[in-house]
Amino acid sequence: MAQGDDSGQDPRGLLVGVLGGTGAQGRGLARRLALAGVRVVLGSRDPARARAAAEGLGVPGVVGDGNDGCAQRADLVVVAVPWEGHAEVLSALAPQLQGKIVVDCVNPIAFDARGAYALEVAEGSACQQAAALLPRSTVVGAFHHLSAVLLLDPAVDEIDSDVLVVGDDRVATDLVQALAGLLPGVRGVYAGRLRSAGQVEALTANLVSVNRRYRTHAGVRVTRP
Amino acid sequence: MAQGDDSGQDPRGLLVGVLGGTGAQGRGLARRLALAGVRVVLGSRDPARARAAAEGLGVPGVVGDGNDGCAQRADLVVVAVPWEGHAEVLSALAPQLQGKIVVDCVNPIAFDARGAYALEVAEGSACQQAAALLPRSTVVGAFHHLSAVLLLDPAVDEIDSDVLVVGDDRVATDLVQALAGLLPGVRGVYAGRLRSAGQVEALTANLVSVNRRYRTHAGVRVTRP
Repeated sequence: MAQGDDSGQDPRGLLVGVLGGTGAQGRGLARRLALAGVRVVLGSRDPARARAAAEGLGVPGVVGDGNDGCAQRADLVVVAVPWEGHAEVLSALAPQLQGKIVVDCVNPIAFDARGAYALEVAEGSACQQAAALLPRSTVVGAFHHLSAVLLLDPAVDEIDSDVLVVGDDRVATDLVQALAGLLPGVRGVYAGRLRSAGQVEALTANLVSVNRRYRTHAGVRVTRP
Repeated sequence: MAQGDDSGQDPRGLLVGVLGGTGAQGRGLARRLALAGVRVVLGSRDPARARAAAEGLGVPGVVGDGNDGCAQRADLVVVAVPWEGHAEVLSALAPQLQGKIVVDCVNPIAFDARGAYALEVAEGSACQQAAALLPRSTVVGAFHHLSAVLLLDPAVDEIDSDVLVVGDDRVATDLVQALAGLLPGVRGVYAGRLRSAGQVEALTANLVSVNRRYRTHAGVRVTRP
């Protein structure tokens, strides 16, 4: 089965930007990618905060910058901003993201007294919103279900989870699968087109329910007999 | 972790009805439940077709009946009708289903030249539509991702998949988890409230994409470190 090793490009050669890189998910992904030998630039509105977050990770190969510089410098950009800032951040960075692969891992979910629930998104999903705002970028959905707690935990060597990769461009989804496959224990699995991103994002609300019921940090594996 | 064995009721004592029992999913679930020692009544519009489908399974403990008789006789009813007939069938059977657990496994998905995609459902999901049509029943979502091909294959001893169980009634979700756990290899996992059913149903479109890309019959496991 393809794990991305059929991708033409070695993901280790990429400079990966992480917008929203000071949040737990962004820092966690940056940490694991850097440990796998990928150079990463964390982006934040405040460049000083991004640099502090990068240093705080304590792994070589991660630097910080403003969102603008992050998007400008990176070869491939992961979007890990809070859903509330998603449209605004991406609209502002459309010129810098032009011609690049943009990997959206944002989950439009909210919480109330009964737990987590999926928000309605006019475009269908965060990924489709990104695609609408970034017509000159190639948007791929991935990394929605990896637990930030596990990504950041130095005691966790491997993460028992697949990364479901959705997108309409085969070269891009192959590359993102390969990127996901660099994380120990993780496998990148192609899981459909961008129009099928909404349920991948929303499933995070179910995983929050799993986490609460079973007091864990759940992941998802696609099984194949 | 709870696999349903914390449920008060032994699911083996239930008479399980399967509406849409002549379809592949319904027959497959009936076959595996019967092999696990559960008595099953397949329902169909045409009682003769239901009886023929039951006999065709070649396992003891499965009988056929009209949808009406199936819903009337069964202790717990699995809804495995095509999405197109979902609202009509359930509306007609509301009196017979009153006071019972109704397990909806219907996936509102469609296909076009680009593959499978999730349909919009006014109520949010097939499960929520069922709950709206059956206010005097307890609706639980489950069994969405089990491959009918694998369920029906006599060469397949175990199915490597979890069953994500969603619902608002703890007794009911516990019982359905226990029912799922009777299928060899399968584990019932609580995965949130009924309002989080839509993405579980829609994820089937992604699994169809996985099946096409990797030429397999994919399932889903929830991992917990």
